[in-house]
Amino acid sequence: MKKRKNFRPDWTESAPQEGSVRSIVKYGDPRAFKHPSDGWVAMMKREFSMSDDDFRNKTAEGNEMLVLKKPVTLKEKHIAAIRAIVGESNVASDDYSRVKYASGKTTEELMELRKGIIREVADIVVHPRDKGDVAAIVAYCNANSIPLTVFAAGSSVNFGVRPVHGGVSLVLSTHMNRLLELNETNQTARVQPGMFGPAYEELLNHAPESLGARRRYTCGHFPQSFEYSSVGGWVVTLGSGQASTCYGDACDLVISQEYVTPAGSFKTLDYPATATGPKVNDIMKGSEGTFGILVEVTMKVFRFMPENRRYFSFMFPTWGAAVDASREIMQGEFGLPAVYRISDPEETDRGLKLYGIPSFVDRYLVRKGYKPMERCLCLGTAEGDAGYTKLVAAKIRKICRDHGAICLTGYASKKWEKTRFTEPYMREDLQDFGIQIDTLEASVTWDNLHHLHQGVRAYIKSRPGTMCMTHASHFYPQGTNLYFIFLMKTSEVDEFRTFQRGVIESIVKHGGSLSHHHGVGRMMGPLMDEHLGREQMEVLRALKRHFDPNNIMNPGGQLGLDLPEEERKKLT
Amino acid sequence: MKKRKNFRPDWTESAPQEGSVRSIVKYGDPRAFKHPSDGWVAMMKREFSMSDDDFRNKTAEGNEMLVLKKPVTLKEKHIAAIRAIVGESNVASDDYSRVKYASGKTTEELMELRKGIIREVADIVVHPRDKGDVAAIVAYCNANSIPLTVFAAGSSVNFGVRPVHGGVSLVLSTHMNRLLELNETNQTARVQPGMFGPAYEELLNHAPESLGARRRYTCGHFPQSFEYSSVGGWVVTLGSGQASTCYGDACDLVISQEYVTPAGSFKTLDYPATATGPKVNDIMKGSEGTFGILVEVTMKVFRFMPENRRYFSFMFPTWGAAVDASREIMQGEFGLPAVYRISDPEETDRGLKLYGIPSFVDRYLVRKGYKPMERCLCLGTAEGDAGYTKLVAAKIRKICRDHGAICLTGYASKKWEKTRFTEPYMREDLQDFGIQIDTLEASVTWDNLHHLHQGVRAYIKSRPGTMCMTHASHFYPQGTNLYFIFLMKTSEVDEFRTFQRGVIESIVKHGGSLSHHHGVGRMMGPLMDEHLGREQMEVLRALKRHFDPNNIMNPGGQLGLDLPEEERKKLT
Repeated sequence: MKKRKNFRPDWTESAPQEGSVRSIVKYGDPRAFKHPSDGWVAMMKREFSMSDDDFRNKTAEGNEMLVLKKPVTLKEKHIAAIRAIVGESNVASDDYSRVKYASGKTTEELMELRKGIIREVADIVVHPRDKGDVAAIVAYCNANSIPLTVFAAGSSVNFGVRPVHGGVSLVLSTHMNRLLELNETNQTARVQPGMFGPAYEELLNHAPESLGARRRYTCGHFPQSFEYSSVGGWVVTLGSGQASTCYGDACDLVISQEYVTPAGSFKTLDYPATATGPKVNDIMKGSEGTFGILVEVTMKVFRFMPENRRYFSFMFPTWGAAVDASREIMQGEFGLPAVYRISDPEETDRGLKLYGIPSFVDRYLVRKGYKPMERCLCLGTAEGDAGYTKLVAAKIRKICRDHGAICLTGYASKKWEKTRFTEPYMREDLQDFGIQIDTLEASVTWDNLHHLHQGVRAYIKSRPGTMCMTHASHFYPQGTNLYFIFLMKTSEVDEFRTFQRGVIESIVKHGGSLSHHHGVGRMMGPLMDEHLGREQMEVLRALKRHFDPNNIMNPGGQLGLDLPEEERKKLT
Repeated sequence: MKKRKNFRPDWTESAPQEGSVRSIVKYGDPRAFKHPSDGWVAMMKREFSMSDDDFRNKTAEGNEMLVLKKPVTLKEKHIAAIRAIVGESNVASDDYSRVKYASGKTTEELMELRKGIIREVADIVVHPRDKGDVAAIVAYCNANSIPLTVFAAGSSVNFGVRPVHGGVSLVLSTHMNRLLELNETNQTARVQPGMFGPAYEELLNHAPESLGARRRYTCGHFPQSFEYSSVGGWVVTLGSGQASTCYGDACDLVISQEYVTPAGSFKTLDYPATATGPKVNDIMKGSEGTFGILVEVTMKVFRFMPENRRYFSFMFPTWGAAVDASREIMQGEFGLPAVYRISDPEETDRGLKLYGIPSFVDRYLVRKGYKPMERCLCLGTAEGDAGYTKLVAAKIRKICRDHGAICLTGYASKKWEKTRFTEPYMREDLQDFGIQIDTLEASVTWDNLHHLHQGVRAYIKSRPGTMCMTHASHFYPQGTNLYFIFLMKTSEVDEFRTFQRGVIESIVKHGGSLSHHHGVGRMMGPLMDEHLGREQMEVLRALKRHFDPNNIMNPGGQLGLDLPEEERKKLT
């Protein structure tokens, strides 16, 4: 083993113990880890005035066994009735299940869990076997006013799975996780909502072998949470994948949906387009479980042609040049890249340091005028037909050069692709030493991009010792998404919460959307009336009353629908 | 003047007299005409067993002055109040205005008008000057339960502008017809709803000269009714343009909308994408005036680069080959054509005869195996960046050839483009001699295309002496739109109506959508419950109750929303 020159923290390398708090806190595969590089540690020490000693003692790791001191208050007769629907083995009321299926992945709840703070949980956890089970449970819960909160992959970052009023947590990923049909003629796949991204993509990629198909396909949707996200979750929370610039956002990938609601079950029709009034297929997207439960979805799929993929990366002299070139690319009408990202100067510089750019390259760049804290990295891919990816990559190269960029080959892009789903694995390591990393995103038109970027960045940087890295990803001819990543040293939940809510408010004040692809959940709910305007929120509330007159579907602030007046926040 | 060998009907060549019924019946520019070719006449004689004599005497031309025997029943105090809002000169209650602004362009209503049959009209016609006027009128009408029916360009083909319960016809095209803002950074245009297609496109095409812009733009939306369609109409009826395969349908072109409704006014937010719950921006699209009135819309615009346009046309040996090649093109991931159409054998053959293919070309085609009533014409364009259009055209050529097609150069496509908006002008000539031409369209996935085509065609052809020409236009990776054109000789409105409703039912029975881009109006309304299913119609009704609790907005069957149970049709 190579001898290490520098101190390295004793990162946790073992799977959390079964039944422990940490096993709920930990992201992703229990046996998978990704640790901050030495560069990261050095940076954090510098930015947060930390010493080696600060990286010696882990705090609030959550290694203790989970204990929930909350009795089940749902009446036994209801539990018995639900057991009769789904079978004994598909109903759980143990402490661990109740907490696990009430937890998402917000920084705030991970901080709290580690400290033993457990928020609302459901009385029982139910694993329906099929859509028939779901229909029976919804009917029963509706008749008896039992709250129902839906859980699939659990990577919500806005308390979307928190059972605020107790009742039932309905877990869709245990059984309802299969690809039901691949239609090669229409290039569509009919999928159960609880299917995880990798299982879905794997089947599509290997469709000839696994499904006897003529071709290989891809789902085209790769959020950072891909490994722990579900197809149904993509749709009901309006997610976006990293390749959305060419494939579209989750909402664009949906052909039809089947829902179970208290007001009845229905499947929207399978047409590529219709002019038969407002599209119920669209109305349901983004409903986050508040109208009903998505039990099947028919998605577009695309031909899988990785052999044609082109990788590119560039360095721009300034953020302004990077933005201008990106706009030109998105409006150029020559086709669109799949992945496409530009990093602002802070993200670029930290990235270069962290991922180890050779110093001679750095010196070369500086000599060429690409200066630290000014230069901006751009990376991406083109996907599709071979002639098309060649054309798109060539056009992008030309436009980037015209805007002063230097071509860095496809290396950075390929490197990024390899680790694109594993970044969240670092959160546990950081939290072990009281460092919080969080992200917020906002949609914005081109003409407001700089105002939003500068305004939110200024807010984040106004807190001493806070890093702020921003990139734009998910591009459209009309604008993009700004993704703000902030790191800070604090173990105080209240401090973190207050600051994080401040960032959200700063986004809205500077004209960004309350969310581009994370969804609303219960975190953004209080700002919905302020953001969309009362009239538009009342439209959503009218739909809510129609679908769910007894307010049993994901109640307690989800989408802000059932928040009392005094909890609807106003910005000053 | 060249002496004509053949008899030619005395087509009407003069503008209808002001105030005449015909001036309402006539499509488009009163002084523009397009007459059936000699080939058309010969064909009609053959198909409908007509003689020259049958083309000598015009019937029911509607040249008489319009007389409406329907008193205004709206109370004078209401009329006075509305006059006080919009000004004296913007309220009309004369017979002519009341009929004109109650009329669309369905074959059925043109037949009826010619016979002096006038259906429901409004009591008064109001021309609001701006969105403030609209808000005041909606508030007043809501407070006094006065029905409001919206009219813009009047090319509805489903009784969408018929004021079934009288009240007010609100005409948005008289004053509210301007481009308010061109945002070159975002590539968007903010437009008033009553702006007609040509005025809008003209301004965009000449943006440097007319608006001081840096570039030229195009709206990307060219329905056949382009000359007499409005931007607002495109959005609220879910229209599609002839170049929709690359630019998208009208619903895809909308960034944000501003509405006045009885439940309040609002503007949706200007973001390229959001994850803030179900999108009110989508919910309003296709509402056809039943929820509220669109008073401003922000649309995507595209760079106008006609110099890069590539035209192509091909002949396929069979309809099956044309469909297969088209599917391969739409799923090929090399970009998409703008215009793209394939004609079925009957449309192809009639087209070749009507538009005068030289006989040596025909002989050549037959010799090569492209046989009459088997072969299928394909035509289209590629638009955008020069390298892109070159690539797309080359890929299409390759795929078409691989499917047995012969390249016919871009001639047919260019010829089609020149006359693409003028076909409707022939309707008056045909109706003058008792011949009806009508069209119905349906969305369909690839795997049901042949079933739908054969089934509906068989229904149409089951009526003796009925022509049926079908093409597919508006393509998607998942399917397309089938456009059925039928011609028949009849002057009996009842017979026509029964047959035409039969075609609609046949479309639904064979799995086509009730509409792809014509909308619902009052014609399709009775089938909405059957087609979408009761649960989905109840969603739309819940929205209707929210926006318009007094049912004043386009009431009387529009979208089927307020139809009593017994008028909701069931298919057997």
